Amino acid sequence: MTIRFIYTGIRVRDLKRSEEFYRKVLGMKVILRGEMAHGGKYVHLRTKSAQRLELNWYPQDNIYHRPYKNGEELDHLAFWVDDVEKRFREVVEKGAEVAVEPFRDDKYLIGFVKDPDGVWIELMGLARKRRHT
Amino acid sequence: MTIRFIYTGIRVRDLKRSEEFYRKVLGMKVILRGEMAHGGKYVHLRTKSAQRLELNWYPQDNIYHRPYKNGEELDHLAFWVDDVEKRFREVVEKGAEVAVEPFRDDKYLIGFVKDPDGVWIELMGLARKRRHT
Repeated sequence: MTIRFIYTGIRVRDLKRSEEFYRKVLGMKVILRGEMAHGGKYVHLRTKSAQRLELNWYPQDNIYHRPYKNGEELDHLAFWVDDVEKRFREVVEKGAEVAVEPFRDDKYLIGFVKDPDGVWIELMGLARKRRHT
Repeated sequence: MTIRFIYTGIRVRDLKRSEEFYRKVLGMKVILRGEMAHGGKYVHLRTKSAQRLELNWYPQDNIYHRPYKNGEELDHLAFWVDDVEKRFREVVEKGAEVAVEPFRDDKYLIGFVKDPDGVWIELMGLARKRRHT
């Protein structure tokens, strides 16, 4: 290997709030945390998959600090779940904001929620076969 | 497992241009491509790691289409490389825009380039020991 994609870093407005969201609402585990030389802080989280998420936070007087605004370049973070309807209700009960209620797309069921900063999170899984009643 | 993080999806303005960038400049491989029911298109890429990147593109008349603007919520996509100075020069020669020239941070060497839409890409690796001359 020469170049290996290792994680996606998102910027958060409140590190504690976001860490709690990804831990408690999405069940991720903190695997690393640290402080940058210039005062910013980061936390790495992951689920059972190898995919890693980094939360980055910069203090207001930091040279990397910019007013937070949502753009369009981060489309969404995708999570595969065993039961979309059930997990969707669970994460919403735990505090995630609904973006798009679960809908069927081919053989998948897909729903979207938002994290505390408005980042879209996709919950996807296989649609169950429906009985024709 | 109940919830498993599977990929990060970014939104691109020109799917072909972005696919070529991630393939040719960063050496990623296309592992999946498809079209959404509403006309949007996506491409999944990865390096040797399990981490996946999804490129999403929506046609202008699509309900999901919005004017592209860069926000702050996507901080960066991170890539681990064997030789930061060398790979940094290579990706810039291949067309990546320089964001921050490689600098030393503790035992790491870190540099940033931008993708065709302005998304920041981190190239990081171990700093080599320097001979005291």
